[in-house]
Amino acid sequence: MLHLQSSTSSAWVEQAVANIDTVLLDHAHCEKKAAATAINLIFRYPHYTEILRPLSELAREELEHFELVLDHLDERNKTFQRLAPSAYAGQLLKQIRQTEPHRLVDMLLCCSLIEARSCERMGLLADALGDVEPKLAKLYAGLLKSEARHHMIYVKLALNFDDEKQVFKRLQDLALIEADLLSDVSSVPRMHN
Amino acid sequence: MLHLQSSTSSAWVEQAVANIDTVLLDHAHCEKKAAATAINLIFRYPHYTEILRPLSELAREELEHFELVLDHLDERNKTFQRLAPSAYAGQLLKQIRQTEPHRLVDMLLCCSLIEARSCERMGLLADALGDVEPKLAKLYAGLLKSEARHHMIYVKLALNFDDEKQVFKRLQDLALIEADLLSDVSSVPRMHN
Repeated sequence: MLHLQSSTSSAWVEQAVANIDTVLLDHAHCEKKAAATAINLIFRYPHYTEILRPLSELAREELEHFELVLDHLDERNKTFQRLAPSAYAGQLLKQIRQTEPHRLVDMLLCCSLIEARSCERMGLLADALGDVEPKLAKLYAGLLKSEARHHMIYVKLALNFDDEKQVFKRLQDLALIEADLLSDVSSVPRMHN
Repeated sequence: MLHLQSSTSSAWVEQAVANIDTVLLDHAHCEKKAAATAINLIFRYPHYTEILRPLSELAREELEHFELVLDHLDERNKTFQRLAPSAYAGQLLKQIRQTEPHRLVDMLLCCSLIEARSCERMGLLADALGDVEPKLAKLYAGLLKSEARHHMIYVKLALNFDDEKQVFKRLQDLALIEADLLSDVSSVPRMHN
C-alpha cells in the first residue's frame, strides 16, 4: 500500500522514543514544510488545474496537523523553535529529473514517499509510545491515516502526467533510493533520519 | 474599522464589473498569495510563537477561499491560469523597514491593509453585482467578513512587536501610501489596481 522498499529499524524507534520531544518538534516542522511544498506546487503549476484543489486541501490538512502538534508541544511545555532538518528530504529531492513532465512526476512521487514513510513511522511510534506517552500514541495513531491518504493522493496526481507503468516503475526506483537514505540511523533524532 | 485612508472610486467598480471574470481570476491568485504570505511568515519567524497559530489558521482560511473561487471559475467555465498581478502589493511592500522588529511590524501592517482593501472592494462588488451576478454578489458578501477579521488579526499580531501608539501611527502612514497607490485606476482590471 505504501510502496516503501524497506521497514524502519527498531534502532530508529528506540532513538525516537528516547528523544520524543525533539522528534515532536521535527514533526511540527515537517507538517509546516509539507503545507509549503503543496502550495509551492500550486504556484509552479497553475496551468495544471487538476492538481490545484487536491493540493490546496492537502495543504490545509497539513496546517491543521501543524497546529495540532503545536498543541502537544505546548502541553509538554516545549517551545516551537528552529531545528536543523535531517538530510533525508534534500537528498531525496536531488533525484528529481529536470525536464517536464518528469520533474513534476518525480516531485509528486518524492512527496508520496515522504508521506508513506511518515505513515509507517507514526504507526511504530503509536505502538511504542502506547504505555509511556498515551497522548502522543493517540496523536500518531490518528495522524497516520492522513499520511497514508496523502501518499495515495500524490501517487494519483502523478498519474495525470505519465502512464501508469512508468509512474509505478519510477515510484519503485525512488522508493529504493528512499530506503537507502534511511539505511543508517544517524545520530540526530528526527522523523526521517 | 478598516483603517483605510481612501474610498474606492466608482470608476474602479465600473471597470471591475465590466471585467468580472478577470477580477475573479485575480481574486483566486490573491487568496493563494495570502496563504503563501502567512506561511512564509511562519517560516521566517518560528521563534515568535504567538504568531504561529493565528497565521496557520489564517492560511487555511485563505486556501478555503482559493478553493471557493476556483468553484466559481469552474461554474463560469473559466480556467484558472497565470495572470500578471497589479503593481499594488509589490509597491506597498517596498515601504517595509529593513530592521527588526520594524520589518515584521510593517509586513503585518501591509498585510492588514491589503485585507482591508479587499474587504472594502468586496462590499462594493457585492452591491454592484447584486442583480446582474447574484452568485458572485453572494460570494463577495460572504467573504468580506473574513477579510475584515483578517485585517484585525494582522493589526493585533503587529501589536506584539511595538507599542500601540507606534503601531497605529505606522498603520496610518502606510494607509496613506496604500491610498496613494490606488489613486489612479490603471487600465488593467484587478482586485487591487
